[in-house]
Amino acid sequence: MSEFEQELKDFSQQFNSKLPLLFKFPSGSEQRVSQAMYYSLINGGKRLRPFLVCQTAALFGISFEISFPIAASLEMLHTYSLIHDDLPAMDNDDFRRGKPTCHKQFDEATAILAGDGLLTYAFEILAQAPHISDSTKIRLCALLAERAGAFNGMIAGQMLDLQTDKSPKLSSEEIIKHIEEMKTGCLIAYAAQSGAILGNASDKEYSAITSYARKIGIAFQISDDILDVIGDSKLMGKTLGKDASQGKLTFVSLYGLEDAKKIATDLISQAKSSLDIFSGKAESLKQLADFIISRNH
Amino acid sequence: MSEFEQELKDFSQQFNSKLPLLFKFPSGSEQRVSQAMYYSLINGGKRLRPFLVCQTAALFGISFEISFPIAASLEMLHTYSLIHDDLPAMDNDDFRRGKPTCHKQFDEATAILAGDGLLTYAFEILAQAPHISDSTKIRLCALLAERAGAFNGMIAGQMLDLQTDKSPKLSSEEIIKHIEEMKTGCLIAYAAQSGAILGNASDKEYSAITSYARKIGIAFQISDDILDVIGDSKLMGKTLGKDASQGKLTFVSLYGLEDAKKIATDLISQAKSSLDIFSGKAESLKQLADFIISRNH
Repeated sequence: MSEFEQELKDFSQQFNSKLPLLFKFPSGSEQRVSQAMYYSLINGGKRLRPFLVCQTAALFGISFEISFPIAASLEMLHTYSLIHDDLPAMDNDDFRRGKPTCHKQFDEATAILAGDGLLTYAFEILAQAPHISDSTKIRLCALLAERAGAFNGMIAGQMLDLQTDKSPKLSSEEIIKHIEEMKTGCLIAYAAQSGAILGNASDKEYSAITSYARKIGIAFQISDDILDVIGDSKLMGKTLGKDASQGKLTFVSLYGLEDAKKIATDLISQAKSSLDIFSGKAESLKQLADFIISRNH
Repeated sequence: MSEFEQELKDFSQQFNSKLPLLFKFPSGSEQRVSQAMYYSLINGGKRLRPFLVCQTAALFGISFEISFPIAASLEMLHTYSLIHDDLPAMDNDDFRRGKPTCHKQFDEATAILAGDGLLTYAFEILAQAPHISDSTKIRLCALLAERAGAFNGMIAGQMLDLQTDKSPKLSSEEIIKHIEEMKTGCLIAYAAQSGAILGNASDKEYSAITSYARKIGIAFQISDDILDVIGDSKLMGKTLGKDASQGKLTFVSLYGLEDAKKIATDLISQAKSSLDIFSGKAESLKQLADFIISRNH
């Protein structure tokens, strides 16, 4: 395990240990939905988005204690999108990260409500985050809602993904770029931007962070597409080859494996250059960028 | 039509005329989800919740221009809950207010996303509402998320509704009360409370408004249960008798029609008394309370 992977793992443990404190299970049978929310949330991945929030905030001298609720809020929102994505009417997945998906573990109605619950709770956690000014929190709230939303955010990306074969006007390249930027890129961009907002970044710094985050966001999706083709299903914790079997339009189906890898590598290189204005203080973020394309799950 | 019904209708038209201004349809095929959101939102009911927000705010001298976004935000959140409630895995309804439900008009995946989109946009509209201080908006954001949430808010009520036959410990009366307070009562309470918050209500005034809103919230649900039994399906715009055919636990199944009506009438009377501290300035809200139990759809 590389030094960075160890750092990411340590962060993940620190983050995960604080999550239960945010849950208040009611005593009646309505607790089922909170249990489903918790089940999906703790079946967490690498916690890249929270890491990005907290590391970017740290770049500006903001402590983990302060950035944690913002990171948790984002991770809850991300988790809701996975629960709904897995539903029978959507991607219809039975497994995620090696465990039964929420609707398989509980039932479909509970999973719909659990997704709704996490999305709602994400905004509650954000609004109630201590030691952050109301104006900063309102700014984050507006940005999160916009980036997660249906007009040009995450939900728009999911809709476009579902509609792709019906978009004759755009070229395949434009469609892919559009999908990746919206579907995955939005929340990754928000993760870094929220850290910069917490840190009262200057316009120039915010711009640099945004540029970095957008590029790693696309590279992240490309590497997901690559792993779907060449990854180890046991490490990935899910069935692979789904993209190809569904004839799905991805970076790999469009450019081929080698060119897709090259595009991702170039994006990571550009992303790291964006951080040069931080004069060596952004090492963690640069290592994260490298990790995004070197990872095997 | 009574004078109050005319007032409600006028309000509804004024409110509806401003809704399209909030929608920004993207140009690509991702616009399908925005179309679905808009379809469900404009297929609006009586707009009781927005009326409650704006009338309560008006009690404190707050103009419609200022309270409108808060009202719109709540109505979007309410609409998302209806879209998801109608889904096949939930109540499985084909019609709402005389028109095909969202998933029947579009498709199930689009409806899931449309619900998610409206819930998300509700928080964006709230966060970006002009002429309201950030601290007021953060307070509203936290309250809305809590009242709509999975621990003891709307989603908890929906979960409890789904779980009712599995709650042996509570008496039927307790279950009903619990469900009504959480499932329907929460948003109605929030509607009035948000108006009071906008108006910088004193603790005493906030308390009075809360008491009023909680009581009309429960009365509203009782009258829904009554209308499901004795209402006119054409006026209601949906299939009736579903509660009984599903053996659902309601105020009517528990207390019988006559006692249910009496309970509702008593609640409305108490609700109106709560408003006495406003010395005659709260006539609209009192008339709303009467309307809740006198309505036929």
